[in-house]
Amino acid sequence: MNQDTICALATANGIGAIGIIRVSGEQAIEICEKCFDGKALTQQKSHTVHYGFIKDGDEVIDEVMVSIFLAPKSFTTENSVEISFHGSPHIGKRILEVLIKNGARMAKAGEFTMRAFMNGRIDLSQAESIADLIASENEASRKVALQQLKGGISQEISVLRNDLLNFVSLIELELDFAEEDVEFADRTALVQLLQKIESKLKSLIDSFQYGNAIKSGVAVAIIGKPNAGKSTLLNALLKEERAIVSDIAGTTRDTIEEVLHIKGNAFRLIDTAGLRETEDAIEAIGVVKAKEKVAKADVLVYLIDVATTDLKDDLAMLQELAREDLKIIICLTKIDEVDEADQKAKAIAKTLQSDIPSHELLQISAKENIHLQDLKDELSTYVEHLKSESNVVITNQRHYESLQKSIDAVYKVKEAITHQISTELLAYELRNALEHLGEISGEFTNDEVLGNIFSKFCIGK
Amino acid sequence: MNQDTICALATANGIGAIGIIRVSGEQAIEICEKCFDGKALTQQKSHTVHYGFIKDGDEVIDEVMVSIFLAPKSFTTENSVEISFHGSPHIGKRILEVLIKNGARMAKAGEFTMRAFMNGRIDLSQAESIADLIASENEASRKVALQQLKGGISQEISVLRNDLLNFVSLIELELDFAEEDVEFADRTALVQLLQKIESKLKSLIDSFQYGNAIKSGVAVAIIGKPNAGKSTLLNALLKEERAIVSDIAGTTRDTIEEVLHIKGNAFRLIDTAGLRETEDAIEAIGVVKAKEKVAKADVLVYLIDVATTDLKDDLAMLQELAREDLKIIICLTKIDEVDEADQKAKAIAKTLQSDIPSHELLQISAKENIHLQDLKDELSTYVEHLKSESNVVITNQRHYESLQKSIDAVYKVKEAITHQISTELLAYELRNALEHLGEISGEFTNDEVLGNIFSKFCIGK
Repeated sequence: MNQDTICALATANGIGAIGIIRVSGEQAIEICEKCFDGKALTQQKSHTVHYGFIKDGDEVIDEVMVSIFLAPKSFTTENSVEISFHGSPHIGKRILEVLIKNGARMAKAGEFTMRAFMNGRIDLSQAESIADLIASENEASRKVALQQLKGGISQEISVLRNDLLNFVSLIELELDFAEEDVEFADRTALVQLLQKIESKLKSLIDSFQYGNAIKSGVAVAIIGKPNAGKSTLLNALLKEERAIVSDIAGTTRDTIEEVLHIKGNAFRLIDTAGLRETEDAIEAIGVVKAKEKVAKADVLVYLIDVATTDLKDDLAMLQELAREDLKIIICLTKIDEVDEADQKAKAIAKTLQSDIPSHELLQISAKENIHLQDLKDELSTYVEHLKSESNVVITNQRHYESLQKSIDAVYKVKEAITHQISTELLAYELRNALEHLGEISGEFTNDEVLGNIFSKFCIGK
Repeated sequence: MNQDTICALATANGIGAIGIIRVSGEQAIEICEKCFDGKALTQQKSHTVHYGFIKDGDEVIDEVMVSIFLAPKSFTTENSVEISFHGSPHIGKRILEVLIKNGARMAKAGEFTMRAFMNGRIDLSQAESIADLIASENEASRKVALQQLKGGISQEISVLRNDLLNFVSLIELELDFAEEDVEFADRTALVQLLQKIESKLKSLIDSFQYGNAIKSGVAVAIIGKPNAGKSTLLNALLKEERAIVSDIAGTTRDTIEEVLHIKGNAFRLIDTAGLRETEDAIEAIGVVKAKEKVAKADVLVYLIDVATTDLKDDLAMLQELAREDLKIIICLTKIDEVDEADQKAKAIAKTLQSDIPSHELLQISAKENIHLQDLKDELSTYVEHLKSESNVVITNQRHYESLQKSIDAVYKVKEAITHQISTELLAYELRNALEHLGEISGEFTNDEVLGNIFSKFCIGK
């Protein structure tokens, strides 16, 4: 509470009906009162809203609504004020100038959230989840971030840590009685706990692939010979998407990315704009360029015109592109345009089955919207399979790394027990595991890590 | 109050720390309560803020703060709620969906402000000033919009209207006693009042030129032969500007226009980007293209290298460009680069004086920042000269047109009196004047005009 008072624009840049400036710090209410023409703000109750004017000396800057939050019942746990003004960026700038003139200073990126963390209102993973929530662009990422904000990951890990901490205490007690050669900590029980922790950590680590798919979207490469029907398929998939995006006015994004949402999950269509423009010939580009695209992808959607009789090129390409962690969906396209499509498809399927590793095979017509739903279902299924059995999903690289370090430490502890290494070393490795587990919630951390985390936030957060 | 309940995003589009959704209407609080997990909102006092969660059935959408405003103490005078959420556009969209599912509907553009007007909280010119405030990009436009929001123009006109209304009543009384040939309304006093009204209207109409300069910025064309120093001058002027613009982080605009602010007034530098790229030769472009640029300008800044001895081209160009309503500032440039610059300047000044109509002459060096302040002062002076003596400035095309119609009606009334036209016709013309004066505050208006005004607002206003 003896920190200085910070202020910043909290709403998005640009013109809106309303803009919000956030002020937080011991002097927040006093400073706002000095430039407020209306009720005495320092006399008001917490969680109340007041009408008035922001003034720079005698000059009125804007007509505003001011909300008061008294410590500790605020986001930062400090005295806080939110000023709602007519949403012109120019007016926002003028109000910030007045606040600074009266003793506040501009907040650094993420400083409000950092204070909420420093003052113990939220842990580090919750702080990070706020940035994730704000950046969430689809249902899946919103849900994961919200669960993390509610303390999901911290809770899971805190249970493991507490169990482990008990053992560490016992083992350190042994150290105190080292000369007596006692064993307070039941090694068998410890190994059992370590197994449990290891399996939990593994499941969390495994969930990172799903978490990543949620956070960044699943990368899908759509490849096929010229005239295999790429443009038509892309347009058919994205047309619906655009309609959804522009469904509710006032909430559309400025630039429409080539992102497809299926059941709340995002799928990034790799380099599709370019593909659509050029209808690039595989022959022309060669395997190299196609491989580049597919290398970045989680899923390959490979299109073959169902009328194709010579599959030589396609087979070569598919064999070249296939890799273990790539899901391959082969779509036989334009089934509306040929007679006996089903028979033709069967013939192709037979050839593919023998030569191409594990893949899904669909018959579609993008033009007539036949079986497009099957393709979407296949994409959804891919994400569902990634889902870990744990309710908690890791989406954060930092958490992932801490979990990796934790599991490594657990391995070392197990090794230490197997090799009956000294209790000192065992205690050291256990402490190490505890520390890495504690990094996620911010119990163990350092200024550099904190600075790195919060600098990625926007100002005003 | 028996209107349906509307909702919309009120903050700027894009990602911010906080987003605000506004809800207004008789059922606003009930609808929000239905999707709110927290205190019972319908039980809360006006102007209070509450922590909780927005839910879609059992699913939590976001952690929010909800502000309650009870009728009639809200912007719209209706029951209103503001929901502050983690500022992801996706979350905003989800919350709007939930509100709509529970009985609200998406607001149309300007519908909140329209309700404030319809419910008598503000008059029409005040409603318009809200859009102006939100769009204000500089001090001058902010101040004028704020004055209009406080009822500045309505007050000025309301005084005139009331005086006139008294006369109309008297004259209409005369009509009732038409057979008795009485004269309740003192014609001399009426003519005096009309004079007063006319002069007031004239001053308001005159202020529109200033108002326009405030609202849109003064258009300044910078012209000169190649190597006269345009780029250097533009860079010198805009460099400082850019430093100011980026002074306070988080409030800069996405695209920096070529706009220069001097003492809170905006100056738009016409087509300067193109000029800077090409350093276009007057000879090459010809008078035609230069005239096109200057035709859009209020001020011409014409650059001549002080070392120039042959002024033939410049003189021809200046004579071609000059027009009565164009302020001409001639800058003799690069005075740091030649010896005896002063003498050379004097020689040029002499030639210009005899051949070029009214203009200002400055000696500058953009490179060495010599006398650039003089140029800025000249630009400021231009705006100051536009200022009307009235405190109230007209910035709105609609107000301008209503004032024009009002003054025309006043002329007709005066004419009617001079020609001793029938009392019926006099009363008709007076009513006409009253009606046009009443258009500004919205006392006389129609749905089409209203629709036209509010459709220009953003959604959420």
